[in-house]
Amino acid sequence: MGAVAEDGSRVVGSHSHPTDATRGPEAIVTDLVAMSQQTLAALASEDPSATVLGVGVGAPGPLDRHAGVVLLTPNLGWTNMPLRARLGEGLGLTAALDNDANCAVLGEAWVGAARQGRHIIGMTIGTGIGGGIVLDGRLHHGASDCAGEIGHVTIDLDGRRCGCGNYGCLEAYASGPAIARRAVEQIESGAESALVQMVGGNLALITAQTVYAAAEEGDEVADEVVSTTARYLGAGLANLVNIFNPDLVVIVGGVTQAGEKLFVPLRREVARRAFKPAVQACTIVPGTLDGLAGVYGAARAFLDQRAEGMV
Amino acid sequence: MGAVAEDGSRVVGSHSHPTDATRGPEAIVTDLVAMSQQTLAALASEDPSATVLGVGVGAPGPLDRHAGVVLLTPNLGWTNMPLRARLGEGLGLTAALDNDANCAVLGEAWVGAARQGRHIIGMTIGTGIGGGIVLDGRLHHGASDCAGEIGHVTIDLDGRRCGCGNYGCLEAYASGPAIARRAVEQIESGAESALVQMVGGNLALITAQTVYAAAEEGDEVADEVVSTTARYLGAGLANLVNIFNPDLVVIVGGVTQAGEKLFVPLRREVARRAFKPAVQACTIVPGTLDGLAGVYGAARAFLDQRAEGMV
Repeated sequence: MGAVAEDGSRVVGSHSHPTDATRGPEAIVTDLVAMSQQTLAALASEDPSATVLGVGVGAPGPLDRHAGVVLLTPNLGWTNMPLRARLGEGLGLTAALDNDANCAVLGEAWVGAARQGRHIIGMTIGTGIGGGIVLDGRLHHGASDCAGEIGHVTIDLDGRRCGCGNYGCLEAYASGPAIARRAVEQIESGAESALVQMVGGNLALITAQTVYAAAEEGDEVADEVVSTTARYLGAGLANLVNIFNPDLVVIVGGVTQAGEKLFVPLRREVARRAFKPAVQACTIVPGTLDGLAGVYGAARAFLDQRAEGMV
Repeated sequence: MGAVAEDGSRVVGSHSHPTDATRGPEAIVTDLVAMSQQTLAALASEDPSATVLGVGVGAPGPLDRHAGVVLLTPNLGWTNMPLRARLGEGLGLTAALDNDANCAVLGEAWVGAARQGRHIIGMTIGTGIGGGIVLDGRLHHGASDCAGEIGHVTIDLDGRRCGCGNYGCLEAYASGPAIARRAVEQIESGAESALVQMVGGNLALITAQTVYAAAEEGDEVADEVVSTTARYLGAGLANLVNIFNPDLVVIVGGVTQAGEKLFVPLRREVARRAFKPAVQACTIVPGTLDGLAGVYGAARAFLDQRAEGMV
């Protein structure tokens, strides 16, 4: 994911593409540089007077922001990848690096659904559940740049095993794959569902998106999976509401496709579990920037890191 | 609880006394003013040249810091009590108000066990479990002054009913009364324990302190209750470590009397559950100021609020 910021406010370019890890860790970086060069060249021909200040990039963590290095990203095959230097040198520009979930939430806070918020908690729900914490306009990174792992709050002490090794993490119940898995489990225990037909009998093809679509059509199994998802997410968010007393919670990612079918019971569960004065202070909204949230956020991360003298 | 700060750094007086709610909400405030006057008079005679800048007071929340009003404190019978004005007018000094758990953590962060920390999470364990969040030296108060309710993070979605109305809150497992209750439950289900003799057969007299004492003597029931407490607290703290990536966690309150018997398994549980880079960055320590943590913190809250122009 790349972003280019101009004149301190405009994001002039962005791109994202499916990563093919089989081509090796270096190829992904080479592609990223090449695509960013194309974006910059297109900008230069469209608007020859534009001044490009730099680029921001969001990457899966853990990472070291000060060094500009992605420490470990198994999916991309990166270990201690100096992504900031590689991108900056490749483009001849100053670059900044931050966590991808942080960038998505920072983007929503800057120009998206959360821009009215002061204390913002963002939750990104996709293959995993991540998050970002924006207090008074600034991301909270923590002592070693790994704050915001809100998908890995325990909501059930002895619950489902999570990919992170812990038990009962929110992510183990409410990530995209977890939503699909819970639907499959119900069907495998004998529940009848339109989902079976929708995937031509191949349950492995059920995704969270299939579940939302079936729920929309009134399928009972899918409907129950969506409302249970709301319950899990509500419990996780209630924790964050009690901890941070945010004025705004923004939810980003595919799960927002479930719409009010998800958000109504989710808000109800938060209200049921969290402290009344904290609930009253807090608005829970879906993100509005879709795939661009992380792009805008990466641009903003560049501006913030530049202002701090970090890059 | 009252505190007096002089010359911006020295805390010159403090007092705390058991509150007797049966005398009514006004009597408690009158007592507080009278005792603060005595403290100030004692200071004036000891050190006639001392300049008193103001007073800070920590009170159970929820409260409105900007208005200086305690909104609701059932234990003291207060509803919309203008504690800051009452104390300030009674003493002829500028007063500041903050939440008592916030004050305890701020005190440890200022001059106690957490003073080396930059991102500090404090947990206060007593009758309830409260907390404070100190980021870059400042308390995070949230949108309506009720941030830091870390005793009410759900660690078991369908678990024990908590006094707050929610289910499975950390407080329902690991507060002082919850620790005592879990020991009593074990004894009532037939487990043999030295605790029975220690309280002359009256199980209602078992407190968390009795449990720690019995565990120290090698009592199996008490020992198991302490290690389960460590497990619950560890799960709750692992959540906070994943969320905040703090460099320091400080635990304040009676529970620290259990010493390494608690802290060793607690640190182990956090390490087992939280992300490795976050665990590595974080030190977990008991507070060192005992009952004075909240007094120092109230003084510091006064200084901070004065610096912000709030009082």
